[in-house]
Amino acid sequence: MPHITLNSGEPGIRGLLRFRPETGRPLSELAEVLLRGPGTLTRGERELIAAYVSALNDCHYCSAAHSACAAAQLPGGMALVERVRAGADSAPVPAKLKALLAIAAAVSHSGHDVTAQDVAEAREAGATDVEIHDTVLIAAAFCMFNRYVDGLATIAPDDPAVYAAGAQRLIKGGYLAG
Amino acid sequence: MPHITLNSGEPGIRGLLRFRPETGRPLSELAEVLLRGPGTLTRGERELIAAYVSALNDCHYCSAAHSACAAAQLPGGMALVERVRAGADSAPVPAKLKALLAIAAAVSHSGHDVTAQDVAEAREAGATDVEIHDTVLIAAAFCMFNRYVDGLATIAPDDPAVYAAGAQRLIKGGYLAG
Repeated sequence: MPHITLNSGEPGIRGLLRFRPETGRPLSELAEVLLRGPGTLTRGERELIAAYVSALNDCHYCSAAHSACAAAQLPGGMALVERVRAGADSAPVPAKLKALLAIAAAVSHSGHDVTAQDVAEAREAGATDVEIHDTVLIAAAFCMFNRYVDGLATIAPDDPAVYAAGAQRLIKGGYLAG
Repeated sequence: MPHITLNSGEPGIRGLLRFRPETGRPLSELAEVLLRGPGTLTRGERELIAAYVSALNDCHYCSAAHSACAAAQLPGGMALVERVRAGADSAPVPAKLKALLAIAAAVSHSGHDVTAQDVAEAREAGATDVEIHDTVLIAAAFCMFNRYVDGLATIAPDDPAVYAAGAQRLIKGGYLAG
């Protein structure tokens, strides 16, 4: 049961965005530009970074929601997402994405954990400054979203079908449609 | 030196907001509504929560910047801010604010660390659902801002006068003026 009385029965962050639309609007806009706006990382890759960080932060709602979004937009589907969540180091992803996932994992602990070596490896694998920037910010943003969702003890459905249906809605309508 | 090549010499998050205005806009809007928008927590109290979390996350730029904003807007000034940063439990702040700071500290570790008891204590001290919500979201947002600023190794000036001057600009013009 959520720690505060929400004004809807919507699960996870959806109930929070509805409860406090003043903060909900910039949070939705941030998700839209980071995960779906113009960029050289694919939407599936960006959702994978979000899902990976959310899993590292043990946030059931966000990791299930963004794993579903990543799985629906990556050729490897949910099998690939699960391989990454089990350990990005050994997952079958391209070198650039692997290096960016390592940066994201460092960010999930602390910004100070991102080393010049981490960044150099990403750059050697072909990552641009904007891609490195966006990876750090996606990872940092999910350290926020995960704490927001779990810090208020929002409800997280168990049924994977709920998240798969939500992913289809997000892929079609984006993060501003709610 | 920052991990990426920025397009200005501005320190901390200011250089990042300028580098990537697409994400800078919703981030600034979030800070404005959370720290300065209509609400029953004073702007000084909200800046204090931001400063406290940033200090717990060891983010020099954010803790210095928001300590200066809190000090300029709280009757206790910087002496009070430093007492809180040294240990909110024993700081001379009202019971409600102390309970909210305890929730913020829990959020800084993990959303899962916020207990029903933490929330009950805040409510018994007079906190409303919106105040509890906003405290969790301010703390979570600074877990993002801190990781963003340090994850890209932005520059943090040492001189406290820089942060005091920045606080005056923010108090006068807000977070959207940059």
